[in-house]
Amino acid sequence: MNILIKNIDILDLSIDDKVIRNSNLVIVGDKIKSIGDYDKEVNYDKIIDGTNRLAMPGLVNAHSHLGMSVLRNYADDYDLNVWLNDYVWPAEAKLTDEDIYWGSLLSMVEMIQTGTTTFCDMYFSMDKVARATDESGLRGVLTRAITDIGGGGDEKFNDMMDLVLEYKNNPHDRIKFYISPHAIYTCSSELLMKCRDASLDLDIPINIHMSETLKEVKDSMASNNMTPIEYINSLGMLDAHIIAAHCTHITDEEIEIVKDKNFYPIYNPTSNLKLASGFTPIKKMLESGMTIGLGTDGSSSNNNQNMFEEIHISSIVNKAVEMNPKCISAEDSLRFATINGAKALRLDDIGELKVGNKADIVLISLDSPHMVPRYNDVSSLAYSAQGSDVETTIVNGEILMENREVKTLDVERIKYEVKKISEKLMTSR
Amino acid sequence: MNILIKNIDILDLSIDDKVIRNSNLVIVGDKIKSIGDYDKEVNYDKIIDGTNRLAMPGLVNAHSHLGMSVLRNYADDYDLNVWLNDYVWPAEAKLTDEDIYWGSLLSMVEMIQTGTTTFCDMYFSMDKVARATDESGLRGVLTRAITDIGGGGDEKFNDMMDLVLEYKNNPHDRIKFYISPHAIYTCSSELLMKCRDASLDLDIPINIHMSETLKEVKDSMASNNMTPIEYINSLGMLDAHIIAAHCTHITDEEIEIVKDKNFYPIYNPTSNLKLASGFTPIKKMLESGMTIGLGTDGSSSNNNQNMFEEIHISSIVNKAVEMNPKCISAEDSLRFATINGAKALRLDDIGELKVGNKADIVLISLDSPHMVPRYNDVSSLAYSAQGSDVETTIVNGEILMENREVKTLDVERIKYEVKKISEKLMTSR
Repeated sequence: MNILIKNIDILDLSIDDKVIRNSNLVIVGDKIKSIGDYDKEVNYDKIIDGTNRLAMPGLVNAHSHLGMSVLRNYADDYDLNVWLNDYVWPAEAKLTDEDIYWGSLLSMVEMIQTGTTTFCDMYFSMDKVARATDESGLRGVLTRAITDIGGGGDEKFNDMMDLVLEYKNNPHDRIKFYISPHAIYTCSSELLMKCRDASLDLDIPINIHMSETLKEVKDSMASNNMTPIEYINSLGMLDAHIIAAHCTHITDEEIEIVKDKNFYPIYNPTSNLKLASGFTPIKKMLESGMTIGLGTDGSSSNNNQNMFEEIHISSIVNKAVEMNPKCISAEDSLRFATINGAKALRLDDIGELKVGNKADIVLISLDSPHMVPRYNDVSSLAYSAQGSDVETTIVNGEILMENREVKTLDVERIKYEVKKISEKLMTSR
Repeated sequence: MNILIKNIDILDLSIDDKVIRNSNLVIVGDKIKSIGDYDKEVNYDKIIDGTNRLAMPGLVNAHSHLGMSVLRNYADDYDLNVWLNDYVWPAEAKLTDEDIYWGSLLSMVEMIQTGTTTFCDMYFSMDKVARATDESGLRGVLTRAITDIGGGGDEKFNDMMDLVLEYKNNPHDRIKFYISPHAIYTCSSELLMKCRDASLDLDIPINIHMSETLKEVKDSMASNNMTPIEYINSLGMLDAHIIAAHCTHITDEEIEIVKDKNFYPIYNPTSNLKLASGFTPIKKMLESGMTIGLGTDGSSSNNNQNMFEEIHISSIVNKAVEMNPKCISAEDSLRFATINGAKALRLDDIGELKVGNKADIVLISLDSPHMVPRYNDVSSLAYSAQGSDVETTIVNGEILMENREVKTLDVERIKYEVKKISEKLMTSR
């Protein structure tokens, strides 16, 4: 399909102005074919009027647990251990593969509606999540989180690797499977090293929770006499590409260890605040040159999948932590949510709107009262914009939402199915 | 006008369930006439179907500078002094009364669209803001901030009092004028005491910025050898009803001084984070029993007028500050934004949906994917909801927005006028 977006302003963080004014963007197939002049002789399958709209790269939600939307607002404002032991884990134990399919689809609808085009998911029943991703039209890095604290590590590792290898050997246009030990506190050193070996052998990244809470750090010191990152370093894991969710409590010494590695911290501001995990040292991480990605985490700790909230909160929280309004900028947060997330997920051809990249594009309406006046689009996107300002969402050259209407998924059916699941969970609570 | 809202769930934080299920609400004139059964013999002027909607009290934005929307995204990420001296104040000096009228209207549109029904404004050209408030249909506490660091205190005081007395002597249904010395660092002790005397004589509250930044506290110590609240206490101001915007750096000793007074701190989480002012000690303030209100502050430091963002951010930030997920709840934040704001503004007949109160009502659509499933509406409203979920906004029994369509204001004209003002400001920058 050929699509021409006419008279459009285009966000380009690599140029001084940050925005290319009144341009044109042509999509051919799954790629951006041109930006600027366009061939007027071509019969485009679709022409979109870009007037009073801003094209930006689709957002990259680099850490979530999509299926957890079935537990949105199920249990809040508890201590972490109570929340997990008394609510989340017992409820998760009741979820079927189909439940996770529908929950993932609900999260996907939210992402399409709020401008996320690529996500990294870590959960269970990942063959179902792959089916949902395929149907949604979104781009997904899928990871089946494994643990062996309860035993059964070999079997889980093999199940995970079956999916990893299936998708490595039969590449899907939009879906990749990565390796995912859940965390250092739920995996033995043997399992972590098996994951490392597989990652290096197959050249496939690892997705892991890392230093999310102070308890994790203290427990690691008690068990290993090392901080979490020192510990995974001691296991040789830093030779691999690591997508490190959270890193709330990364230390100065750890930043020194990882800053020149393929180690990508994924900042989850809402979840870290809501679960009282703490404040991520973003200023130091930025100064070290680390490539920071951004994520929502699951909807049980967020409680939605709206990356515009993460951009907003990430752009302001650390200013107060440091009592310095210049320690992080609106542009930093937009980078987290676009090009940095792409690098973290090792997807080279998304995250920026440039010729040859995949056509993962979001059109933002500039029509809302809160987007007026228009002095500075970078500030507008970080500080004023809402997920509801996303008008059109395009992934891989396919229009997933146009004028707020989701095209690829049956939104009413998905809401209906998730309501049924919630009734089951409440009855048995 | 008689309005019947049928089959509606109603937020009621005073009951254990927090929500009255499948009820009916009747509005007669400007008041809530009944909740529950309704008279089927009456010919209602309008019947609204409440199915899959939640009625909640209209939100109270207890601190803003509405006219500053003309400076939204005009200057961000600067040190506070640079921001004020080099950008905000020079730009404000160029604003005409008409500019402030249009800017205030733009903020009012945003508030109507995101569920705010009452605001407290502190700015200039307040006769124009009163005109805008009258036209918008919103309920407003208006305050003309005065200073005398540049002299002219008497004249400004008299101008302010003209408006205060005009509205005291000729009450407007939705508009009140309160007394407003801008801050202790912009007003002499003489001016502050004149404001105190007028407040006590006329029984009219005072609206003042209070302990917003550490600099304010340090300067007060240097000048007065007292903290800001100790200082206003020494001037006898705590005998008055005080609406105290910010209180970011309120101390334990100050909390003891004010906790049993008519002293109402107004928390502005986004502004405090974005301007790097710091973290307000909400846990201690809650424990002391203080009635905390919530505000957006102006759109130059927010950068919008969406109280759902303030509810969300206020509900999660202090959890991380205290590393305690239970130190503030979703319900606390909803109270800040409704009944507490009403008390802070000394408006006894709003902030709760109960019979006899003014009909200031917001209908929230429960239809958005991010509002599904529905385990806990209080959590949903604080953690998942978006301003765009507000479907209908009613103030004083008048429908200001229905199905997202603003009825009282010409939104396109207002955007057009504000764009023109922004062009003027950019040309002369």
